[in-house]
Amino acid sequence: MADAVRGLTREDALALDAADPLAAYRERFVIADPELLYVDGNSLGRRPLATADALQALATTWGEELVGGWESWIAWPATIGDELAPLIGAGPGETLVCDSVTVNLFKLAGAVLATRPGVVVCSPDEFPTDRYVLDALGREVVASAPEAEALRAACAGREVALVVFSAVDYRSGALADMAAVGAAAHELGALVLWDLSHAVGSVEVDLRGTDADLAVGCTYKYLNGGPGAPAFLWVRGGLIDGLTSPIPGWFGAADQFDMGPSYAPAPGVARFLAGTPPMVALAAIRPGVAMLAEAGMPAVAAKGRALTGLAIALHDQWLAPAGFTLGTPRDPWARGAHVALRHPDAWRITRALIERARVVPDFRKPDVVRLGLPALTTSFADVFDACERLRDLVAAGEHERVDPAPRRVT
Amino acid sequence: MADAVRGLTREDALALDAADPLAAYRERFVIADPELLYVDGNSLGRRPLATADALQALATTWGEELVGGWESWIAWPATIGDELAPLIGAGPGETLVCDSVTVNLFKLAGAVLATRPGVVVCSPDEFPTDRYVLDALGREVVASAPEAEALRAACAGREVALVVFSAVDYRSGALADMAAVGAAAHELGALVLWDLSHAVGSVEVDLRGTDADLAVGCTYKYLNGGPGAPAFLWVRGGLIDGLTSPIPGWFGAADQFDMGPSYAPAPGVARFLAGTPPMVALAAIRPGVAMLAEAGMPAVAAKGRALTGLAIALHDQWLAPAGFTLGTPRDPWARGAHVALRHPDAWRITRALIERARVVPDFRKPDVVRLGLPALTTSFADVFDACERLRDLVAAGEHERVDPAPRRVT
Repeated sequence: MADAVRGLTREDALALDAADPLAAYRERFVIADPELLYVDGNSLGRRPLATADALQALATTWGEELVGGWESWIAWPATIGDELAPLIGAGPGETLVCDSVTVNLFKLAGAVLATRPGVVVCSPDEFPTDRYVLDALGREVVASAPEAEALRAACAGREVALVVFSAVDYRSGALADMAAVGAAAHELGALVLWDLSHAVGSVEVDLRGTDADLAVGCTYKYLNGGPGAPAFLWVRGGLIDGLTSPIPGWFGAADQFDMGPSYAPAPGVARFLAGTPPMVALAAIRPGVAMLAEAGMPAVAAKGRALTGLAIALHDQWLAPAGFTLGTPRDPWARGAHVALRHPDAWRITRALIERARVVPDFRKPDVVRLGLPALTTSFADVFDACERLRDLVAAGEHERVDPAPRRVT
Repeated sequence: MADAVRGLTREDALALDAADPLAAYRERFVIADPELLYVDGNSLGRRPLATADALQALATTWGEELVGGWESWIAWPATIGDELAPLIGAGPGETLVCDSVTVNLFKLAGAVLATRPGVVVCSPDEFPTDRYVLDALGREVVASAPEAEALRAACAGREVALVVFSAVDYRSGALADMAAVGAAAHELGALVLWDLSHAVGSVEVDLRGTDADLAVGCTYKYLNGGPGAPAFLWVRGGLIDGLTSPIPGWFGAADQFDMGPSYAPAPGVARFLAGTPPMVALAAIRPGVAMLAEAGMPAVAAKGRALTGLAIALHDQWLAPAGFTLGTPRDPWARGAHVALRHPDAWRITRALIERARVVPDFRKPDVVRLGLPALTTSFADVFDACERLRDLVAAGEHERVDPAPRRVT
């Protein structure tokens, strides 16, 4: 990418942008302030331009068609699920958009545990809401890293019902070997449920090809669905008939408008709908999903590897000498599209970047400055400039002027 | 209202409109087709004009402030809950807007049952999703009508944990005596949880004044929040500390961004948040809530009684002779803002009204044509014209030309 002696330059980054087949996608998103370097799209993805029209269209349908709008809306959780399916290697009719990741995990894990004895396995580094939900399900939770060997070792001699891991770790960005973990889970007689929140839209996910059983994930990060956009859930086709949601709502009933004396689950994955899904929020999910499907995940994931590769090279060139260590795998095939830069003063550095350097990353405890680099909205120049500003800020001691008391940053 | 001999005329309805202090609110909603008589606002409320700006503002904040938008969004479930509080007699800090009615009922009922032994009481006529959720909680469900005497009789000698009723019945429109039912529940040692879906925005609800314990409700009917708009939940202030959500998500944790090893509930009602709430959908809830708060529930409820009163008078004048019976209480203080017109051929009559008479009510099994009459968007002339078209349609046998096979109508 560059001569090792002279080091990487901004011209190298611009050359990468010039050769980037996805570069034009950036123009299809709101970039209100071109000087602001937004490297937190893995927390909240940028807004597609098309979202405004999608919301307006929903508002028009609601205003004009009134309750008749439900003739089409009723299918949206499944329709948008199918639109999302190519991003995760799902078959048709297996994916739903509804509720939150938290509630979807509760429904799927609860349904599995109702049919299977044994412990649940999860990583102690799993995203908190996932751990909290699993802890509440009344089964022993066994700790394991999201790796096949660790899983086998942790579960030796145990009866295991369910293994839950994030495909991409929210802090380190490490990408699990989904096929190997899935195979190990199945050897143990368990099902495997993936949280794809940081994986969907950033790496190639092949749920069917890696023999996964269940999945949940987020649409407001790399799918650009908007703040708090409804989540998705996926269940392998052959598995669905044996599962019943622990939250049996009318949208998941076999005949929603029969309103009979007792609940019978709908055929297929629709049984995992609960209450009425928020159509305004569902409408906002479609533009981002459509762009990713159009760009294709092979190209999107390849650019993610290149963007994170550039960030890692700049870490080595500038940041390691300034006291940072890399918290993300160097193997491009073993990471998602975000990079964890570890530093003892990460909290103040993050605040200083936001307040004084017009760079927006986020902080994750205890010591991570997290740079999220979504392929459709991040240029190589962004990565170069963000790392350069970070280098200069730390060199100037700017972060030492920040109030050390933590405040909330999402 | 009119001379009993000559009967009600359209001039009577127009006179009521001329004297209606709330008449001008109608102009603040989308009325795309003035000839269409929409009497299904209790299924999906009309769209406020202001919703377009609210959605645009959310889209702008998302586009421009990016993740920084969360500095304000994070408070919205509680903020909008407090905006809604005056409509239901709630105190500040007791109400949240989040999830669906189904999920909120699951959380609140599950939290109560985790702390109290005994059966659950519910009406066999309760809205289906509520019955399905309660059936799934692992306790015996005892049937009772939503009346104090019936409750005492059904529970004699039983240990009762929780009583769940709709304040306004979704089919009949009957309004429960919330104070009397609450007192009876408390005599039994139980807590009372109200589903306010058909009550909020239609009648005066006084949760604190009637000694209620918990409540859930819908924002897409009389609150005009949009299709599938997120629901609300309410917990009496003194009760909250003893309750923990069965779905412990990160938004309900004491320190959301501490991301520590185990879940500790947030202080107050915020512990009943689960995953990230959909802000686009929350934004759409505010305009309708604001208009109802501005109009004041005493005036809104009074107009509701007058509108339903007119519908009942026209039922007696025109529809009873045509084979209808009234399925709604005649006492104006004992009903919500919708009227159930019962007829053996209700399904085909409903379809014929929609397809051939430009009147949109809805059908509820087995025999109800349901007219929803939200005060801010319904004129007395609408009620007159809808009942007149219904009369004429049945007299002409138009409904007999409708395909009798049921299809879905929400």
